[in-house]
Amino acid sequence: MKIYFCGSIRGGRTDAALYREMIEFLKQYGCVLTEHVGDASLTDRGGDGTNGEIWRRDTAWLKACDIVIAECSQPSLGVGYEIAFAEALGKPVHVFYGKSDGRLSAMLAGDPQISVHYYGEKETLFTRLGTVMDAAQRRKV
Amino acid sequence: MKIYFCGSIRGGRTDAALYREMIEFLKQYGCVLTEHVGDASLTDRGGDGTNGEIWRRDTAWLKACDIVIAECSQPSLGVGYEIAFAEALGKPVHVFYGKSDGRLSAMLAGDPQISVHYYGEKETLFTRLGTVMDAAQRRKV
Repeated sequence: MKIYFCGSIRGGRTDAALYREMIEFLKQYGCVLTEHVGDASLTDRGGDGTNGEIWRRDTAWLKACDIVIAECSQPSLGVGYEIAFAEALGKPVHVFYGKSDGRLSAMLAGDPQISVHYYGEKETLFTRLGTVMDAAQRRKV
Repeated sequence: MKIYFCGSIRGGRTDAALYREMIEFLKQYGCVLTEHVGDASLTDRGGDGTNGEIWRRDTAWLKACDIVIAECSQPSLGVGYEIAFAEALGKPVHVFYGKSDGRLSAMLAGDPQISVHYYGEKETLFTRLGTVMDAAQRRKV
């Protein structure tokens, strides 16, 4: 299974350690195309490559992937863009949001094509992520 | 001309006064469908309506609009989503970014279909916005 993981880079790296844990977990199920999103050395200035190179690589990965998993607790233009881009291609999109402040964008929270998973504890996040990925794997096999 | 203006709501209202000024300026050229984005009383909890109602209204406006103008200095999931959604419909998208920190998302800065306008001073922003809108109006007439 090819998994596209979305997390904030230039929007802020507050949740980078959580992204890394989610990516490690997702690797049980297949290839995480965007593994660099969890890289501890990646700052909010972004990684190597020009903006054009990054856009071409990431949109090619979005076209190739089987599923999109997005951690959305940190606002990010890139993550919002990737979600709508994936949706236009008919890819299944799962959004995870770790706060109970009602501030997840209505464009995600109100979109009937997106599965939104609210979680409080990290344990809940990983239980839910496991359920989502088990189901995706069954559909794929 | 029907103009869709994008600015951060739940991502943070730091730039709300600037959005309001841009919307007032844009009203010279036609109808700004998303005039509420500049409302000073609108907080980062968002406005009235359920998430589903907001999503249905905003995606209908994106389908109806002639041009998308996005102020992207504040990271926002909703703005990123709206830009990719509009692009998939073939709408012209203009992104304005007021910082020189290299932190505009690569998914916007590297996308060849998007016109990105970097500005330092507010005067530059409005001069550029006028040029963009004059050209759009000429194409429309």
